[in-house]
Amino acid sequence: MTFTFKAPPGDKSALETGPDFTPKFDEKGLVTAVVTDAGDGQLLMVAHMNEEALALTLESGVAHYFSRSRNRIWKKGETSGNLQMVKEIRTDCDQDAVWLKVTVGGHDATCHTGRRSCFYRTVSLVDGAPVVAITDEHRHFDPDEIYSGSNKA
Amino acid sequence: MTFTFKAPPGDKSALETGPDFTPKFDEKGLVTAVVTDAGDGQLLMVAHMNEEALALTLESGVAHYFSRSRNRIWKKGETSGNLQMVKEIRTDCDQDAVWLKVTVGGHDATCHTGRRSCFYRTVSLVDGAPVVAITDEHRHFDPDEIYSGSNKA
Repeated sequence: MTFTFKAPPGDKSALETGPDFTPKFDEKGLVTAVVTDAGDGQLLMVAHMNEEALALTLESGVAHYFSRSRNRIWKKGETSGNLQMVKEIRTDCDQDAVWLKVTVGGHDATCHTGRRSCFYRTVSLVDGAPVVAITDEHRHFDPDEIYSGSNKA
Repeated sequence: MTFTFKAPPGDKSALETGPDFTPKFDEKGLVTAVVTDAGDGQLLMVAHMNEEALALTLESGVAHYFSRSRNRIWKKGETSGNLQMVKEIRTDCDQDAVWLKVTVGGHDATCHTGRRSCFYRTVSLVDGAPVVAITDEHRHFDPDEIYSGSNKA
């Protein structure tokens, strides 16, 4: 990291309209990252970034996250080849979330199941019970082959 | 609430391909909610839901969240009139996030600043410093008027 982020300003107006990007990391040091395809806007995944992941992403133009399950920096696609090239980054009014518009390399798949998007299921109530239904069964790669012996990244 | 959610299954395959919606609430009892416009797919906001907010949303078809700052259920638009009618709900591979496709009532604005989306700023590095630039100045309502004496909802 060649820079650090300034602390969020106490003044709400400065936070919402000032010139500085001052991400509000939570008590675990994370912000939420929403990732969409820069082409058609499809929601691909939701992940988290710590300060280092966010800085690496800004510096390199390739998406890095913080894996909560593995407790380490996670260069998305480092195993599968499905790297995410960042075309635009946005932040929201209170700067505790970022939105990455990306193009996906490799198989053009983001989900570790091989699907394009992690959001491959709809949710509804059926007879009063919350159920899911799979809306996308197309696999861009075979996860058993790609991740054999490796972490799912 | 007329129902409760089952606990997430221990088996990963059941979590990713089974019929039940078993949201994985974090240690604070929350899942992340990503909200897009059902029409053009624009990312509008990111928020959080506890079990009650998620159940109310499923039952009523109107988006409810959990306000971390106010520590209570938050029917989005209850003050501003910008209610969110839910057209589709999706969940991701590990079921710790939901995606709501909504149509927005009232002023068709989601951000408390009066803008359509909370993500009204781009982030970049300029001379090595992380800065933001406002890309949307169009206000659909005057926040001072709408929220005078009220919480921003």
